[in-house]
Amino acid sequence: MTEAEFIAALRHLPLHAGARGLQDDAALVGGLVVTCDTLVEGVHFLPDDPAGDVAWKLVATNLSDLAAKGASPEGIVLSYPLSGHDWDGVFLAGLAEALDAFDCPLIGGDTVHLPAGAPRVLTVTALGRDAAAPARSGARAGDALWVTGTIGDAGAGLAIARGAEGPAGLLAAYRRPQPRLAEGRALAPVVHAMMDVSDGLLLDASRMAAASGLAVTIDLGAVPLSSAYRAWGLGALAAATAGDDYALLFALPDGTAPPIPATRIGAFAAGRGLDLRQDGVRVPPPDRLGYLHAAP
Amino acid sequence: MTEAEFIAALRHLPLHAGARGLQDDAALVGGLVVTCDTLVEGVHFLPDDPAGDVAWKLVATNLSDLAAKGASPEGIVLSYPLSGHDWDGVFLAGLAEALDAFDCPLIGGDTVHLPAGAPRVLTVTALGRDAAAPARSGARAGDALWVTGTIGDAGAGLAIARGAEGPAGLLAAYRRPQPRLAEGRALAPVVHAMMDVSDGLLLDASRMAAASGLAVTIDLGAVPLSSAYRAWGLGALAAATAGDDYALLFALPDGTAPPIPATRIGAFAAGRGLDLRQDGVRVPPPDRLGYLHAAP
Repeated sequence: MTEAEFIAALRHLPLHAGARGLQDDAALVGGLVVTCDTLVEGVHFLPDDPAGDVAWKLVATNLSDLAAKGASPEGIVLSYPLSGHDWDGVFLAGLAEALDAFDCPLIGGDTVHLPAGAPRVLTVTALGRDAAAPARSGARAGDALWVTGTIGDAGAGLAIARGAEGPAGLLAAYRRPQPRLAEGRALAPVVHAMMDVSDGLLLDASRMAAASGLAVTIDLGAVPLSSAYRAWGLGALAAATAGDDYALLFALPDGTAPPIPATRIGAFAAGRGLDLRQDGVRVPPPDRLGYLHAAP
Repeated sequence: MTEAEFIAALRHLPLHAGARGLQDDAALVGGLVVTCDTLVEGVHFLPDDPAGDVAWKLVATNLSDLAAKGASPEGIVLSYPLSGHDWDGVFLAGLAEALDAFDCPLIGGDTVHLPAGAPRVLTVTALGRDAAAPARSGARAGDALWVTGTIGDAGAGLAIARGAEGPAGLLAAYRRPQPRLAEGRALAPVVHAMMDVSDGLLLDASRMAAASGLAVTIDLGAVPLSSAYRAWGLGALAAATAGDDYALLFALPDGTAPPIPATRIGAFAAGRGLDLRQDGVRVPPPDRLGYLHAAP
């Protein structure tokens, strides 16, 4: 059973009214936004990634989904596999840093033991409050597509974590991603659709278009790149197909300026699929639009 | 770092006001009860346990914590490791059965891939509503200790699942535990303290006593045993130290009758620790009071 088949089958189960048909990264339950992300050692993080960074990333990826709903963190629930080693203490220190940084308390959770040698599997369920909660499926034909921040830094950071040469700033973008909570709160009341960029800009934009029943055009020449990323040497296509950016991707009516700094990278139109451009000229989309976390 | 040390360290993190100091199996957030339980292959279930039973158990163990708070299921959030094998489909069928049986919708979740050969790690966060939400720490000196249903059936079922001879009814008690939702709703408004028996009656009762700052006396002769368990051949001490019962354990003022069928098995008093009796005669507590899920 593939992931798509599995999720399609889940949709035949009794679904909560706030589950949005499992089409979104977050659900709405009793005034709270609910989201869940799991990180697997060897799949979502490297076995030698520092434990404190794994803790930070676990919190940040979940809060990024809250940010995309315009929510403020109410708290997190943590499922943690105890190793009995120093890793646990370093993880706790990183967890404390992240919870402090994002003003997010711990609600509860579960602590388990894994069989010897098993890869770590860490799950957080995050709850958020005060959300305008735009869906990813609300884009309309004619809307412009915008993105916050810069794209590709974390992808470069992953390459650096795996041994490539590169600056600490790019490595930090991979290891200590920043959920865009304030930006999300500013954007949520005015956007037609919003989601975070977690698996790659092209892949996630295609998902927003598909969920909205539309086609999307993206101009690679418009994709915002940091000066560190440009200096590192890879281009916009590599940036737009790498993961872990945790920027916010959103649809606004054409002609409407966003309330925070952001970059217009494309537009939605009737139809389906991805229409990729480079400075106005159509280019074929790559086979791989993003970072799919298949196990090795 | 041991589990106790880890949880003690978690208490130094910023905690949600509804986290109850991480002393309870569930938290209270915005009118909802929140609980989280993880099942690990080879630790909480056997690799050859049927996938549908694992799904059932994953839901049931979480809803049992809601039952102990007197809550009704609002829904569950599922983190699922996709295997790509038939296991996934059988799991889904069991999940559908459990959600139907307990009138519990799916809210959302995450699907991940594990590295090849890794043991499955499955996490559910369950949300409940309309809870009176008694704490486990509210028992008072002089309160009687009560338990619903019978004890030890699931422990016998685990032995049968591992190859011992025994009846299907005991095996079912292990593989298809029943969260006591209706009983929990009836009890929650009147009890001083309540929790579910998940790790063993003696261990969980000792935890309730410790959380309440009291000693507890339990008479093994009073522990309710099913006729199937008695016929299977082990006694009350084995039953009271086995896990996975998912009965409800609660404290009521002496002389107060519970609103549902239950068995009085002991009492709370000033002091600390477990005072174990057999038909009124003090017996030494066993070294192991319950089933601690240490990894093999």
